[in-house]
Amino acid sequence: MTVRQLSLPELADACRELGVPGVGLWREPVQAYGVEAAAKLVRDAGLAVTTLCRGGFLTAIDPAERAAALADNRRAVDEAATLGTDTLVLVGGGLPAGSRDLYGARERIADALAELGPYAESHGVRLAIEALHPMYASDRCVVSTLTQALDLAERFPAHQVGVTVDTYHVWWDDRAPAQIARAGAGGRIHSFQLADWTTPLPEGVLDGRGQLGDGAIDLREWKAHVDAAGYTGPIEVELFNEGLWARDGREVLTETAHRFTEHVNRGT
Amino acid sequence: MTVRQLSLPELADACRELGVPGVGLWREPVQAYGVEAAAKLVRDAGLAVTTLCRGGFLTAIDPAERAAALADNRRAVDEAATLGTDTLVLVGGGLPAGSRDLYGARERIADALAELGPYAESHGVRLAIEALHPMYASDRCVVSTLTQALDLAERFPAHQVGVTVDTYHVWWDDRAPAQIARAGAGGRIHSFQLADWTTPLPEGVLDGRGQLGDGAIDLREWKAHVDAAGYTGPIEVELFNEGLWARDGREVLTETAHRFTEHVNRGT
Repeated sequence: MTVRQLSLPELADACRELGVPGVGLWREPVQAYGVEAAAKLVRDAGLAVTTLCRGGFLTAIDPAERAAALADNRRAVDEAATLGTDTLVLVGGGLPAGSRDLYGARERIADALAELGPYAESHGVRLAIEALHPMYASDRCVVSTLTQALDLAERFPAHQVGVTVDTYHVWWDDRAPAQIARAGAGGRIHSFQLADWTTPLPEGVLDGRGQLGDGAIDLREWKAHVDAAGYTGPIEVELFNEGLWARDGREVLTETAHRFTEHVNRGT
Repeated sequence: MTVRQLSLPELADACRELGVPGVGLWREPVQAYGVEAAAKLVRDAGLAVTTLCRGGFLTAIDPAERAAALADNRRAVDEAATLGTDTLVLVGGGLPAGSRDLYGARERIADALAELGPYAESHGVRLAIEALHPMYASDRCVVSTLTQALDLAERFPAHQVGVTVDTYHVWWDDRAPAQIARAGAGGRIHSFQLADWTTPLPEGVLDGRGQLGDGAIDLREWKAHVDAAGYTGPIEVELFNEGLWARDGREVLTETAHRFTEHVNRGT
């Protein structure tokens, strides 16, 4: 998503040239390209698929909507398995229209996980609940903290359900470091994503994620937290940013790789 | 601030007509009108000044900036005393330019409170630390939760430092109800403010606070929380909303009073 202006073949080429060993994919471009074809493309390029983004949106009350969401999530698991990634990232979903019940919405996510966890396991896929920043609590994700994400995940086996740690969503939370330790101890850090926090936020607050090093987040410190928690998996950079999307995609990917070295990896 | 399009005399008139017994004032219009003159105006209108908004912005590292901020906060205390309100709301301040140290910034707020608390007490004024939504953590307020606000306040006597509970800032936080109980038990709920959460958020995310009943927050539930915590003080409605500011101020005030009755008070 960081370089969504690149086609999948362009992305695979650019990653190979830069020595980027893996890539997190989103469902929409994969579906447009064809899931099998995308799987062959990245396999032939020697690229690991780190995660598939995203399933979720599991808060509907209406039975038909709910059944449709579950079916769509089973398809997402199938796609992840076809792509050869072991991790499907889940964004919980917001409040249904007219509802003000955050607690009930979170419980409906738990109910859905009870169905999706075993299905994912049978396909060799783990679910990774992503806590989204509290500014998305009403319209996108009622799971706003790592604490809440782990409270949900821990009702299920770790090889079925864990969490995504994304710096953009948790950086403000003084409880998050301890929750990362909790997640690591339980083998539940299934994904680690980076983005920086820059202001002013754009209208709708979706596409304002900052390039690494441009913002307020001490990225090296968060990497140290997941390192200390025993995480050895891939690190993804996930930037939704109109400014970056308007530029040449290879240039953005090159810049991002350099920023990663400078602001995340160096000195750790 | 909800009806900033009204002058102070218009506001006093409108409150009297509607039977609104008190008003929270902001420093800028009070200073423009004259602090003594504003104090006489509201006194003559029989209006209580519920709080003065706002002091704070206490995170500077630079000694000159820091001294200026402390001096400005002492002036804010003086103004509160002149207006006859016992409560000055404080917004902590964001990260200084180039800093990524949320913890250090919070400690500088604590250092400032150690100076400002006794000064406020000697003027019959209490300080009310307001936790702002985490989306303001970098540029406006490093105190993002009621837990953090209370951790700061409890280092000082309750008659010097307490907290502001604002539904807009805390509604997403499943820990907030317990923190309201904690604050109430310690006599530290110094202010209670209402706004609703509506989306999409506008650019800059400052002026998108929803009219009561328009959004995702169960306002009646939050009032029940502060009631249960023993709070019997005034309830303020604080909306920053371009749409409301563009309308006739008396009409907005009337609407707000009706919304308060319908969405907050009825049935409690």
